Parts: sequence; structure tokens; C-alpha cells
Amino acid sequence: MGTPLYQTVIDTIISRIASGELPSGALLPSETQLGSDLGVSQGTARKALIELEKRGLVQRAQGRGTFVTLRTPETSLFNFFRLRSRDGTLNVPQLVSETVTRRPATEDETATLYGRPKEIIQIHRVRSVGGRRATHELSCLPPALYPGIIDRVPLTNALYVLYQRAYSIIIVRADERLRAVGAPPDVAEALKVAPGTPMMRMRREAVDVLDRVVELRTCHLLTEEMDYFVSLS
Amino acid sequence: MGTPLYQTVIDTIISRIASGELPSGALLPSETQLGSDLGVSQGTARKALIELEKRGLVQRAQGRGTFVTLRTPETSLFNFFRLRSRDGTLNVPQLVSETVTRRPATEDETATLYGRPKEIIQIHRVRSVGGRRATHELSCLPPALYPGIIDRVPLTNALYVLYQRAYSIIIVRADERLRAVGAPPDVAEALKVAPGTPMMRMRREAVDVLDRVVELRTCHLLTEEMDYFVSLS
Repeated sequence: MGTPLYQTVIDTIISRIASGELPSGALLPSETQLGSDLGVSQGTARKALIELEKRGLVQRAQGRGTFVTLRTPETSLFNFFRLRSRDGTLNVPQLVSETVTRRPATEDETATLYGRPKEIIQIHRVRSVGGRRATHELSCLPPALYPGIIDRVPLTNALYVLYQRAYSIIIVRADERLRAVGAPPDVAEALKVAPGTPMMRMRREAVDVLDRVVELRTCHLLTEEMDYFVSLS
Repeated sequence: MGTPLYQTVIDTIISRIASGELPSGALLPSETQLGSDLGVSQGTARKALIELEKRGLVQRAQGRGTFVTLRTPETSLFNFFRLRSRDGTLNVPQLVSETVTRRPATEDETATLYGRPKEIIQIHRVRSVGGRRATHELSCLPPALYPGIIDRVPLTNALYVLYQRAYSIIIVRADERLRAVGAPPDVAEALKVAPGTPMMRMRREAVDVLDRVVELRTCHLLTEEMDYFVSLS
């Protein structure tokens, strides 16, 4: 079974938005022009645009054309970054160490990640805030979506921006679960704190614009000098 | 200085929405009718409706009139309730104990709460989930907004619904800060756990439809069998 033609049009436009070629606010070509550029009918181009509008990537303004409306991780990165100093100022964590490996997936990882991978890429990072080790992060990726990522080490500090630029993966939602735990021995050692130190454990499923879980991240966060800020409405 | 007339119209409509007299989707009287009902000019009624629309309480549909659009705590209570069992099911906490007192405000409480109160009403609650004590909550209120609340004890399990029904206070946003802490002695005793047990500490400012911080809540949450769920986008 081949990919439907309009899906190819969707993928092409997503990749142009992801690369920055079509930034937020940019006007897309008309349906006719788009069809002719991509070798599909005007109807197929229209179908793709309707689908892109449903997903919130573009908006069709009567008589004015179709505009890019999506906020990408690159333009709204801090929506996904909730840690702040007590006074509310943002401290971007700095990389202390990074190890990227390929390993068999756990059952949970297979069940959660897009494509049900049997193996995953694991990005293991320790990051510091204000000169002090503060976060221990394991980010798991389905290898099929991120070809060659191991060869890109060291990775950029903001992974979602890398996913967008290098792999056209635009993360639009993060579903998180938080709980308080005592630091497990390996985390305690990596962060140089006593085992059992109260920490926040966060499990985050990052969902892209095509509704795929493209990253599963498990973090342990030292919140002695930081809070996790969130606004509910 | 008196309250501007259009503010009185706004307050009246908010109180009708809060009481349930005007539920979501209800059609408001026309500007002319509203002005005549409330003894103000049509222009004043219009000014009030424009302001209510800005705040997201109503929507004016050309040629069809003005409709209530607000989701109130009563209709969207679970947006503010983020604790779930590990499997994602909601366990509404059950009241174990409740004490309501009036006491001098701390500096932080005065600075945070609407009206800069020097005294506050404190609602101290312990609640259980699945038969086990799980939350320790201190909710602080500016007394001027909640006349006679001490006489209403025992309060309803869902405080925001009480605030809405009895005081026309409609909470539309909650700004939270979370961190992991070891259980302080008084919390540990109330929840019957060892002091130092890892817990989530949550500080929540509840903001009403008039942009006032109408409650400051500090909770300690045992997350041994629960997670705090949140979706970011």
C-alpha cells in the first residue's frame, strides 16, 4: 500500500515548516500553484491544506490565502520548559554529560513510542542549573524516525529544536506525569546527592504534529532551588 | 468613588452565570432589554457585554445575540484536579478532617491575595485517596470576598464549586508551582507517614474571572500511588 498522495503533500509542507523555510505567518502557494509544484491535482492540494488546518499548522483566510500558524518548538520552546528559580526567572540547564546509546526497548517503551520499536536510542544527560547538577534525563527515541542521530553527538542543548531541524519532527504537546521520589542510587551518584534525597520524577511523552509519540523522557529533578511552574485553565 | 454603572452590570451577569441561572450556551437578553431590566442605558449594557466578551465569559454572535461561553469550575472542575492513579483513573480525594480558622496573614499571603488582606480565612484539610491519607491542604482566602464562610463548615468537598455557588467567584485559572520535599513534621503527623518522606509540595494561586487571586493554596501530596498529570502545548 503506497502513501496517499495528499499525505505526501502534507509531509512536504510539514518538512518546510520544520526547516524554517516556511516560518510562522508565511503565505503558502495557492492550491493551483502547490498542485503544480508537487505534481498533484488542485483537489489533492486542497485536501492536504484542509488536513493541515485541522491539525493547527496553517490557517486559510478567505480571499487572502493560506498562512502558517503553527508555533514550533523553536518559536515556543519555553512552553515545554517549566523549571524556574524561586523568583520565577528561567535558568536554562547546561549540559554536564551526555551519552547516546542504542539498546533493547523495555515493554513500556515499545508500547508507548511510535512504531512500537524493539530497540531504542537512549540519550542520557546530566545537566546543571546555576553551576549545580540538577537534572538527570533519559530520553528514548524510536530509531526509525531519527536516522544517524548517534553520529550527531554532541547534540544541541535543546533536543526538540534538533528534532525539528534535522528530522522535520515538530513537537506540539508534552504529556507529563510527576511524582516525588527519593533519589535512586544511580541518579544520586550522577547528581552527587545522598540516595533518598527528595526529587521530582517526571515522565514525559512528547507528541508531534502527526500525533505520534516521538520521545519518551524520564527525568529526575532536584528542586531544592527550583520550582516546576504550570498554569491550568 | 462609586462603582461605574457598567461594572454593576458586569457583576450582575457574572453572578447569574456563577449561580447557574445563566448556564453555558444560554442566550442573554438584548442590550435594550438588559438596560431596561437593570435600569441602565443601552450604551452601558453594551459596554458591559463588550467587557464580558473580552474576558471570555460571553460571545456575541452577529444577528443571533449574546451567549454564555464560559466554562466554570462546576462544568470543568477536573481541569484543576491533576492527581490520577498510575493507570490514569481519577480518584477524587475524600475529606478526613477540616478546620476553618481566621488568623493574621503572612507577608506572602498579604502580597499575593486580592485586596492585600491583613487577616485571612484558613481552611485546613486532610484528604484521603483509596482509603489512605494522601493530601494535606492549607487554603487561604481574603475574608472580604467570602463573608460568613466560617459558618458554612463543613464545606463542600470541591471548594471551587462552593466559591462559585455561594460567592459568585468563578475560578478560571490556577498558577501552580511544584517541588519535591521531605514531609515536614506537622504534615507527616497529619498524614501518618515518617518525617522526611518524599512528597510533592504544591503552591497554587487561584485566579477568578475578574483576574483576582482569590485563593492561595499550599498542598503536600503523597505520590506513592498517584501521579500529577499535566499536558503542555
